[in-house]
Amino acid sequence: MAKRMLILGGDGYLGWPTAMHFSQRGWDVAVVDNLSKRRWEAEIGIQPLIPLAPLERRVHTWRRLTGKVIASHQGDITEEEFLDAVVRNEQPDTIVHYGEQPSAPFSMRDQQHAVFTQVNNVVGTLNLVFAVYRHCPQAHIIKLGTMGEYGTPNIDIEEGYLSIEHKGRKDILPFPKQPGSFYHLSKVHDSHNLMFAARIWALRVTDLNQGVVYGVFTPEASLHPDLVTSFHYDETFGTVINRFLAQAVRGIPLTVYGQGKQQRSFLNILDTLQCVELAANNPAKAGEFRVFNQFTEQFQVLELAQKVARVGRSLGFKTEIVQVPNPRIEAESHYYNAVHSNLLDLGLQPHLLTHQVLAQMLGEIRPFAKDVVEDWVWPRTNWNGEIRTNLLTGSQP
Amino acid sequence: MAKRMLILGGDGYLGWPTAMHFSQRGWDVAVVDNLSKRRWEAEIGIQPLIPLAPLERRVHTWRRLTGKVIASHQGDITEEEFLDAVVRNEQPDTIVHYGEQPSAPFSMRDQQHAVFTQVNNVVGTLNLVFAVYRHCPQAHIIKLGTMGEYGTPNIDIEEGYLSIEHKGRKDILPFPKQPGSFYHLSKVHDSHNLMFAARIWALRVTDLNQGVVYGVFTPEASLHPDLVTSFHYDETFGTVINRFLAQAVRGIPLTVYGQGKQQRSFLNILDTLQCVELAANNPAKAGEFRVFNQFTEQFQVLELAQKVARVGRSLGFKTEIVQVPNPRIEAESHYYNAVHSNLLDLGLQPHLLTHQVLAQMLGEIRPFAKDVVEDWVWPRTNWNGEIRTNLLTGSQP
Repeated sequence: MAKRMLILGGDGYLGWPTAMHFSQRGWDVAVVDNLSKRRWEAEIGIQPLIPLAPLERRVHTWRRLTGKVIASHQGDITEEEFLDAVVRNEQPDTIVHYGEQPSAPFSMRDQQHAVFTQVNNVVGTLNLVFAVYRHCPQAHIIKLGTMGEYGTPNIDIEEGYLSIEHKGRKDILPFPKQPGSFYHLSKVHDSHNLMFAARIWALRVTDLNQGVVYGVFTPEASLHPDLVTSFHYDETFGTVINRFLAQAVRGIPLTVYGQGKQQRSFLNILDTLQCVELAANNPAKAGEFRVFNQFTEQFQVLELAQKVARVGRSLGFKTEIVQVPNPRIEAESHYYNAVHSNLLDLGLQPHLLTHQVLAQMLGEIRPFAKDVVEDWVWPRTNWNGEIRTNLLTGSQP
Repeated sequence: MAKRMLILGGDGYLGWPTAMHFSQRGWDVAVVDNLSKRRWEAEIGIQPLIPLAPLERRVHTWRRLTGKVIASHQGDITEEEFLDAVVRNEQPDTIVHYGEQPSAPFSMRDQQHAVFTQVNNVVGTLNLVFAVYRHCPQAHIIKLGTMGEYGTPNIDIEEGYLSIEHKGRKDILPFPKQPGSFYHLSKVHDSHNLMFAARIWALRVTDLNQGVVYGVFTPEASLHPDLVTSFHYDETFGTVINRFLAQAVRGIPLTVYGQGKQQRSFLNILDTLQCVELAANNPAKAGEFRVFNQFTEQFQVLELAQKVARVGRSLGFKTEIVQVPNPRIEAESHYYNAVHSNLLDLGLQPHLLTHQVLAQMLGEIRPFAKDVVEDWVWPRTNWNGEIRTNLLTGSQP
């Protein structure tokens, strides 16, 4: 009998490719989504660069082309009864939880967005652990965390736990977290809640602390334009690498925030799928809260801009780099070294960010160059923006 | 000009004595409360042992007896506009934040109580930091945390931070947290949010990780029966020490959960007031998230029961100790040693749990012995209770 997978956030950038990936490999896949990303795009006034088919058309086209069924449940996982019913009916073996508000700038827009992000993410995850223990306590929860939970400590970042010797005594304790936005904080809250639920209810949980993902065209997404996933380059939902790629094909300067010596970790979307599959095929033990740092390479932001610029120029794009004031409050020059051996030990074969990969990505988005809206890239959400505005204008909320 | 203090949760066990303490000492005090504790008592069907006057009567009696005004604002700090207006109008120098759902068993009753506790506590604290930065960014936030945030690591518990040497590099990082209930988790989430807000907005924050507080009759509370604070001995809002005291005066066995070798930290309510005053008079620096471990003594639970039993017998109460199955999932025998020198360094003069103090407390509640409801003490909230019930009955939520 096919193994059953439930994917929360199955309409999202990673959720949809994950759904196709496992469906293709014989899993019985169901997705849950409330289509909130599409609503937030409308609220902010941006769109992904490559047109996205609606979820129902994706599912329909996938079935037409492959004969495989991806079930879809439209609803909000912060509603206890909805998620409870889905979990009860689906009886999944594995749950992949991408169903959260995923943007740091979105969470830093103002008080409402900060509060919304924390409530949305924390409540969805709490509802999940209750539903799983109630209806399928043996199921394996694979939760997407972020490397951003750790911040930039001056010691090596281990995978979730740290062996500590202190005043002659020893323990292995959760790795201390110093997240850099209300969004990243929500993920830290989730991690603590999941660790506790795994411990007291013997749940199986894997937390994938992921780096920045790049890439759009997975093998399944390449089958048909309806199956493509999202490419965001705007300041809210876009990643730094997508911003650079969009700027390169549009022929506008690549914008580096501040000094550009911020170091971050990265991986190819193909490796996200590999990692989730490795986790799914090697579940956590009952009661185990297992943490993998999920990325393949570390770069300085400026170094990344230089890579994109170099490849862009080789393809005939006029690429230059400009440094703009950093809208975030973060260390711009710091030590950074994160361990990431757990997934390699399970068999991960990394796809690195080579000249060829960058050239391919630039080629893929080149047809949409004229649709890049320069204004959407510009950083407008300052980490102290709302407040500063209020103080200056004396406006009363 | 008098310094201005705003107390969130000013109708609560510690909030009201704190209000009187600072009012007596010349501060201009305002309290905020939504009277939710009184509603939760009704929901659960319990009452504090000593009758409590309504907040407005407390304030009125205080004014009548002392001539001092404590302003009171009734409302919910999870409502952004309410708290924003209070902070804007009060312009406090110091905010003492007790305004949270404070019970671990309450948070473990079922899914709704878990979700409510985390949303209530996290959103109230987020609303506070936004309001403070918007209207009085120099104000000092004194937040009540709990020693329970740390759990029971196998190393000494430091005050908020841990100096770590790892693979030849060093950093001072947030002390790793392993809380033991959805309530304790909510406090850990608060701590992370406050640390971040202090850092990015240069707020002044002191987090008081408090042990279990005992005692009712502060000097101000003793002035009049209307001014007394709450004594809860029920399984939800009662503390272990109040449970033992109530059982002793009622002449029923003192119930120890499990082995009783759980170690916890304790302090007298007089020392809570002293500590908050020391913090208020020595504010954190701008941008500082300062953590004090606020307690004076550590005991094993069984040892505490024995102390109460011994003093009880000396007063003629028939006290015996019984061990009951532990409703919580927690280590029952563990290393425990928590540093608590920061407040001593500021001048804290501890009031310890002597024979005399226990005898005095037993004497204070003796007049209410006949009102002790034995059934309210009995543990009914199991850490896996809701779930186990559902699994056994197969009930559909």
